[in-house]
Amino acid sequence: MNWDRIVSKRAPDIHGWLKANPPGIERMWATEGLIYLSNGAPALEQIPITRLRQAHADAWEDPGQTLSYGETEGHLPLREEIATRMARRGVSTDASHILITNGSQQGLDLVGRALLDPGDIVIIEGPSYFGAMQAFDAFEIRYRIAPADEHGLLPEELEPLLQQEPRPKMLYTIPTFQNPTGTTIPDERRRKILAMTRAANVAVVEDDPYGDIYFTPEQIPPLRALDEDVIYLGTFSKTLAPALRMGWMVAPEQIRQLAEWSKEAADMMSDRFVQRAVTRTIEGGWLDNHLIAARTFYRERRDALLAALEREMPEGVTWTHPQGGFFLWVTLPEGYNSDDLLPLAVDEGVGFLPGSCFYPSPTPHRGLRLSYPSPDAVTIAEGVRRLGIAVRRLLAS
Amino acid sequence: MNWDRIVSKRAPDIHGWLKANPPGIERMWATEGLIYLSNGAPALEQIPITRLRQAHADAWEDPGQTLSYGETEGHLPLREEIATRMARRGVSTDASHILITNGSQQGLDLVGRALLDPGDIVIIEGPSYFGAMQAFDAFEIRYRIAPADEHGLLPEELEPLLQQEPRPKMLYTIPTFQNPTGTTIPDERRRKILAMTRAANVAVVEDDPYGDIYFTPEQIPPLRALDEDVIYLGTFSKTLAPALRMGWMVAPEQIRQLAEWSKEAADMMSDRFVQRAVTRTIEGGWLDNHLIAARTFYRERRDALLAALEREMPEGVTWTHPQGGFFLWVTLPEGYNSDDLLPLAVDEGVGFLPGSCFYPSPTPHRGLRLSYPSPDAVTIAEGVRRLGIAVRRLLAS
Repeated sequence: MNWDRIVSKRAPDIHGWLKANPPGIERMWATEGLIYLSNGAPALEQIPITRLRQAHADAWEDPGQTLSYGETEGHLPLREEIATRMARRGVSTDASHILITNGSQQGLDLVGRALLDPGDIVIIEGPSYFGAMQAFDAFEIRYRIAPADEHGLLPEELEPLLQQEPRPKMLYTIPTFQNPTGTTIPDERRRKILAMTRAANVAVVEDDPYGDIYFTPEQIPPLRALDEDVIYLGTFSKTLAPALRMGWMVAPEQIRQLAEWSKEAADMMSDRFVQRAVTRTIEGGWLDNHLIAARTFYRERRDALLAALEREMPEGVTWTHPQGGFFLWVTLPEGYNSDDLLPLAVDEGVGFLPGSCFYPSPTPHRGLRLSYPSPDAVTIAEGVRRLGIAVRRLLAS
Repeated sequence: MNWDRIVSKRAPDIHGWLKANPPGIERMWATEGLIYLSNGAPALEQIPITRLRQAHADAWEDPGQTLSYGETEGHLPLREEIATRMARRGVSTDASHILITNGSQQGLDLVGRALLDPGDIVIIEGPSYFGAMQAFDAFEIRYRIAPADEHGLLPEELEPLLQQEPRPKMLYTIPTFQNPTGTTIPDERRRKILAMTRAANVAVVEDDPYGDIYFTPEQIPPLRALDEDVIYLGTFSKTLAPALRMGWMVAPEQIRQLAEWSKEAADMMSDRFVQRAVTRTIEGGWLDNHLIAARTFYRERRDALLAALEREMPEGVTWTHPQGGFFLWVTLPEGYNSDDLLPLAVDEGVGFLPGSCFYPSPTPHRGLRLSYPSPDAVTIAEGVRRLGIAVRRLLAS
């Protein structure tokens, strides 16, 4: 067979995938014993194994029916639990507005299926989550990068991007504890942004994997609480466990319906047994108690990372101060980039994802992503000590 | 928001979905106490609840790692078990050729992502599985219908469809115990078909949900055993349980790699815990023993359906005699169609899917799908008695 004559022009290509692998990444993955400071997974200590195991064991009621075909939109009691949780954050919703997805990654794919045509413009924050770009790339769209500062998206920079021809179709944002920067858009900016997108008739997709992991006194309401046209994506990957592949979408009915039909075409339904197990895991307020402990745990690790950076980074290096989530963003002095830093860091025994991973084009960037959930405080300190040596070597070069 | 200006031209539309609902279907779903004779799910009695439950309980080894992020291609021991099973059917493969999917439905979506561009021609059997059409519709392709008889696809009818301009890109076939007809393509026809598709450089996608449920003395080798360029889709939905969403793809490396990248974009990975549970369910030859019993069970129900049709159907009605799988295809006499039959059948308290469900366009058709897995023999007999009355009413009208 001559597959080259058959393969879709839309199929992900090796060039596209290499793009997501700036020079040095392969060597980093192959290096044993490295302290990796960019992990996006929850800490193993925070995966509630005992509770999940018990919930899986208890979920075998009416197993014959549960294990057969069923509703594409998802298990009703799970959607009800999610609706209750969303309502507490100010989102006026009920189970009928919610679609269960295989993690928020499938939510991104289903949003693309509902909204995106070839050549469409999608505005993303610069930098932004590479997995969203992987999902949207399948729809042959183009990106427009919206500048952000330490308080996230800049409304005055967004406005011209919304007006520019061709007009964009969608804004993809992680407004709360952003990936990769850890920044959060303040309330006033949120209202300005939503007024602008509404006026421009641009869809807003709010990705919120980290909203439950806050170090602020109060939880931050999602954009969806301010505007019922926002398409909201949530997940249990960060609060329970990634491998469960359990996320959800809250969307206006027309979009939710399209996404449900697309899910039917894509994989019919999510595992019905696991949906029941997750329902039993979170119910009765259990998840709230789990999150109280998780927030303390992650805040301590954030503090360890901030203290280590303060101690180890040379003059001219800056970083964000996240109030929740998993990440912060280190910016090197003008004239240096994190693609060049990576091999030096790997030489010292520390790894991270350089900024070029978080843009649609592979241009080297001054920024880099660090995360604090996974290594303990001692390991964070040692990792940042090594990173400090590498940064000094870079600045001296 | 004006969503109509935003929604993708590719998004599934209500028109498309209604197409899959010929007149009378809604009323059938809403009718209580109906005997439904078209179910595509395995019999509840054949879902191995005890074994699955034990396997799920036993799969909690190294749970922290298991529940975190992991390989998109799937759990290696599961892929090894599948490779061993495929090898016994004459398929030269190993775990590295196999991609775990969320049921074969996701396999269909990933094949589409790898191969299909707007306007491409896909050849399908007439009739064929509607879920495959749902999956392929997302890629804005057009269908060419290949005629089939009681031995499946007709090579001499396929040949001109392969040569016709614009040239097709793909043949989608269910060669063994087809859905919805229950027919199986004999070996000699298979070889002719593969010689033709290879000469025309047309990709062959073999959907094989039913190959393990055979009533023949020997299991029928898949097309993939005859041609390593065939893209093969398998599933545990019919042999274990649909809700597990566990299927697999065996494909040439270039296509498998594209499908894996697309899966990463679509939902990252399948539930890693469930993959381990399925591995433990099938291992040590357990699935083989389970299938021996399942085949006897389903053969008895097939016999009950065939006997009932023999008894109840008036002159001029014909049906296929499946040697495995879940379905058979009843053909009404010339001049009558199954869309017209459905309301009469529902009046009598029996339901089925009319032939129009199994074509890309909603034209009424003489055929209809019946299935035997789910109702017991007594219920099958009563359902077919009712269907016989409805058919006589139709023929008398």
